[in-house]
Amino acid sequence: MSKTVIAFSDLRDWEQRKRAQLINSLGGFKSVCLIGTISKSGQSNLAIFNSVIHLGANPPLVAFIIRPDSVERHTLENILETGFYTINHINEAIYKQAHQTSARYPGEVSEFDATGLNSEFKNDFLAPFVAESNVSFGVQFKERIDITLNGTTLMIGEIRLISYPENCLCEDGFLDIEKAESLTCSGLDSYHKTVRLSRLTYAKPDIEPTEIEMRYRE
Amino acid sequence: MSKTVIAFSDLRDWEQRKRAQLINSLGGFKSVCLIGTISKSGQSNLAIFNSVIHLGANPPLVAFIIRPDSVERHTLENILETGFYTINHINEAIYKQAHQTSARYPGEVSEFDATGLNSEFKNDFLAPFVAESNVSFGVQFKERIDITLNGTTLMIGEIRLISYPENCLCEDGFLDIEKAESLTCSGLDSYHKTVRLSRLTYAKPDIEPTEIEMRYRE
Repeated sequence: MSKTVIAFSDLRDWEQRKRAQLINSLGGFKSVCLIGTISKSGQSNLAIFNSVIHLGANPPLVAFIIRPDSVERHTLENILETGFYTINHINEAIYKQAHQTSARYPGEVSEFDATGLNSEFKNDFLAPFVAESNVSFGVQFKERIDITLNGTTLMIGEIRLISYPENCLCEDGFLDIEKAESLTCSGLDSYHKTVRLSRLTYAKPDIEPTEIEMRYRE
Repeated sequence: MSKTVIAFSDLRDWEQRKRAQLINSLGGFKSVCLIGTISKSGQSNLAIFNSVIHLGANPPLVAFIIRPDSVERHTLENILETGFYTINHINEAIYKQAHQTSARYPGEVSEFDATGLNSEFKNDFLAPFVAESNVSFGVQFKERIDITLNGTTLMIGEIRLISYPENCLCEDGFLDIEKAESLTCSGLDSYHKTVRLSRLTYAKPDIEPTEIEMRYRE
């Protein structure tokens, strides 16, 4: 492939949205999830995020970035009010509805109602799950880290409740989220299915990694 | 799909590695990149990371998580020493070599040499790029945020130099990283190609999003 090499400073004359599209594409494929919350007064909220990252397995921590933006403010306010939220993978059947949650609905409108996605409560977990999501989990808020460089906030929480399709769990604990039809995204607005190349064995010096056979639990 | 709903506390009797596999799978599909660095004495280092996230377009910031782990320590040390690093997407031709960079090589071994990946310097950027990578960019270190909850560190940097295949850039600035053959990963060890469903228009209340036609720049 013939490559263009360009200094960021040479993009200064690009229109701001065009530059944002390119910069948003560079980080690679991303997690794309719906975060469900509820206010103290019982108003539910649902918003799409593409910045969820695994932070650690012990304790089981996940993080996501929240922008200083009115669309995402309800998610932040509800998490700070109640301490709980859900993270829900999206799939092909609901990705257009998921995308639509990023529209600027008034505060009194629940994105569940506006998009036709169904809320569901699991066990005694406080925050609403997305019924149409195949993989989802409930999270307890732990820490907020404000990033002064650009006014974003890193929200960190601990995984409390996990919901997944029974036939997607492998014997070694690996959850096959491709089999569960989870999607990935790139840039600001591009949604993708996946095709596994392989799982690779734990890397050791001077031994070539080999492919791990997928062994699902019965 | 028939679902299992399980509290994290009920996984306490799972073997630690099995629990880590499940927790690592939950965050969804992830960016998977090689980070290239060089020490002051000229020793290059290359390590695979699956936690790169877009932090903002203006200024153009990316972040990644570094674990308190000896394999990733060289990357951290080199970044703190020199202030610069490269982030390189991986593709099907190199994903096994990319995975192999996570083996615990001694400090005097460059993962470029150990895996057969080629280093390349672009313009006057200090850190080495991966020649076989189609999409890559050079980053200047900006801020380190230590996350006390689990001893990880969020590394934040600003994008300085961008390299991409000419035929993958769209007119609106979107870079088609699927056409550029970038991969995604899930869990600890699963690598995937992607298949685009569509790009969707900017969401507005009460208007259904439509598909954006891909228009590449000539």
